[in-house]
Amino acid sequence: MDKMTIPRRHFLVGAAGTVCTGAVVGSGAGSALAQDTALPDYVAWKEPGAFIQHSENTLETLRGEIGSVVTPNDLLFVRNNLPSLTEDDVGDPEAWTVSVEGVSDPREITLAELKGLDVAQVASVLQCSGNGRGFFEHETSGSQWLTGAAGNVIWTGVPVASLVEALGGVADGVQWMTGTGGESIPDGIDPLSVMVERSVPIAAHEQALLAWNLNGEPLPLAHGGPLRLVVPGYYGVNNVKHVKRLAFTEAETQAKIQQSGYRIRDVGVEGAPDQPSMFEMNVKSWVTQPLMDASSGRVLVMGVALGGTEELATVEVSTDSGATWSEARFTGPDLGPYAWRSFVIATDLEPGTYRIASRATTVGGASQPEDFPPNHRGYGHNGWSAHAVDVTVS
Amino acid sequence: MDKMTIPRRHFLVGAAGTVCTGAVVGSGAGSALAQDTALPDYVAWKEPGAFIQHSENTLETLRGEIGSVVTPNDLLFVRNNLPSLTEDDVGDPEAWTVSVEGVSDPREITLAELKGLDVAQVASVLQCSGNGRGFFEHETSGSQWLTGAAGNVIWTGVPVASLVEALGGVADGVQWMTGTGGESIPDGIDPLSVMVERSVPIAAHEQALLAWNLNGEPLPLAHGGPLRLVVPGYYGVNNVKHVKRLAFTEAETQAKIQQSGYRIRDVGVEGAPDQPSMFEMNVKSWVTQPLMDASSGRVLVMGVALGGTEELATVEVSTDSGATWSEARFTGPDLGPYAWRSFVIATDLEPGTYRIASRATTVGGASQPEDFPPNHRGYGHNGWSAHAVDVTVS
Repeated sequence: MDKMTIPRRHFLVGAAGTVCTGAVVGSGAGSALAQDTALPDYVAWKEPGAFIQHSENTLETLRGEIGSVVTPNDLLFVRNNLPSLTEDDVGDPEAWTVSVEGVSDPREITLAELKGLDVAQVASVLQCSGNGRGFFEHETSGSQWLTGAAGNVIWTGVPVASLVEALGGVADGVQWMTGTGGESIPDGIDPLSVMVERSVPIAAHEQALLAWNLNGEPLPLAHGGPLRLVVPGYYGVNNVKHVKRLAFTEAETQAKIQQSGYRIRDVGVEGAPDQPSMFEMNVKSWVTQPLMDASSGRVLVMGVALGGTEELATVEVSTDSGATWSEARFTGPDLGPYAWRSFVIATDLEPGTYRIASRATTVGGASQPEDFPPNHRGYGHNGWSAHAVDVTVS
Repeated sequence: MDKMTIPRRHFLVGAAGTVCTGAVVGSGAGSALAQDTALPDYVAWKEPGAFIQHSENTLETLRGEIGSVVTPNDLLFVRNNLPSLTEDDVGDPEAWTVSVEGVSDPREITLAELKGLDVAQVASVLQCSGNGRGFFEHETSGSQWLTGAAGNVIWTGVPVASLVEALGGVADGVQWMTGTGGESIPDGIDPLSVMVERSVPIAAHEQALLAWNLNGEPLPLAHGGPLRLVVPGYYGVNNVKHVKRLAFTEAETQAKIQQSGYRIRDVGVEGAPDQPSMFEMNVKSWVTQPLMDASSGRVLVMGVALGGTEELATVEVSTDSGATWSEARFTGPDLGPYAWRSFVIATDLEPGTYRIASRATTVGGASQPEDFPPNHRGYGHNGWSAHAVDVTVS
């Protein structure tokens, strides 16, 4: 039986009002309805009806599905650069090996060994670089994500710092931590053109994990199991799935995904290594309720906000398209600097139409801009205006 | 397709070593093997193979299944005093009503209205009063729970304090908060003899919620959906499922479950209202890994610890049956005073047999005793000795 068939059928589809809210992912620019098409086999265990399916490898969580500070596995978005590994590909997961290079004592180490080395749990936002792409006004290639290429999850794994220490420390001259995914590369294709290999600045290894558990469950293959490199605070692409190699290197990888992919540049410009790479996430927030309509009187405006790699200071909400702002209250546990926080504010709205926006600010003073400048691939959108929702109050 | 069929089959059953660890719930006193019998229909969405099924209404999470600070819904134990409501019983969940009494403005309020009033998220341990009953040496009636009638979850709901404020405050003379479950009572039975109606001291309303969401999913019926009274820090029975009535009262309910049930008394003594009731949880911890065997050398000892209603100060671990102790390290996010925390300590063990124990202490100085005194129904066991595991290192 599907995990939530009973409660879902009952609690979402059974409640007409909730269907309206739950099925709409935005309003104004970028509205979209849930798709009732079946999910691909490799993610068939996920919640049916909770996603927009952009492609076989990309599932977006509906904006109204975010109901808690932790995103359950079956509501978490999916974005795979290459097809996910299968059980046959992986074999015995405990025997999965990762080659650790660029340390004093380089070696291959199994998942079973990693589990005996050290353990930590970190809550972090997992977010695709292109989350919000659908809000740009210029044309962009790639999935037209709105808000749902993001989730907040708890990883369990071995701290990379503990692994490095056990292997004698990093080699001299190292500037990057490079992770390589274990996906197979089709014959006849230049591996560098398609392989998932990413380098992040060496400092990021201090908060990184090699993770085998997602929200208390063995890390599903669709999310990079049996072992994934997790770099809290960094965009999704840096969190290399099915990680087979962890190398501390003097230079960035030559893979296309690093050299020209995931680079911020002006519209029409080719990607190049001298452009900013999609490393640390920026401050961002969005409203998750209401999304379309509400009854007049007391209306709770709820949402989520992240600081990237910084703690959040405040989230403000506007019901008049940014003319005036009021500070919202955080709800629920603070899961640390890499997690998102849930927020709520009670408003009193008469019948009419309202453009409701949210704007987050970090303790370091970084704040969401009204608009985010266009860039060729549509990365990193955190403009509060485009993320606003138009709500009809009656 | 079952939610975790792919990852589970692959990651647990596929790994012989993990099967040994995962399938054993204790060692020494109270060992038990996982049961492969099918789960009852109303919880068929849960993880097969992760539970000991004590009865139709009681599922215990295997000790080795705890792999994260938050317990996923499909690994959460089940203990229902009466059969769970069905979808047909509930109808439209948004129209579910709870009668709020003993306030200035008593009224029936729907779930939809509650959702518009206020919202909070609280992480708390949900634990049956009889968790650990199987560790008592005297004979007790009831499910012989070991460690698995407990989980750590995140609830979303309306703070009872906000509801009370909206209804003008509690009436004069009120000393108790009384919740009544919506289960139907068979004809011909005195309702007081079976109904789930519990009273807790009025002060507990300050941290209580009426919750509709469990770990980001609509609260499943098996766990008290569509609406449950949650009293963080209090034993499970006080968290009334399918709550239909929330009354602020001058006296405790006359229901048997309150008057004589869930009372701590000497073995052979009848339950009575003057005996301590199972309200606030006591400080407790237990090891979740290793449970049976380990390879010599570096061995990570992991577990979970709760302070009841107090923050934890320390957890110590002994590998020599309590002769010597070393302080463990907390891993992962601190979800607040009502949640449990995960801990780990690295040990260095030569081949041999070890009795491994853990002992938690709160900031207020409450600490687990070596032994917990026998009591008639086997409630509240937090003795560190009985919770220890015998591990063979080879």
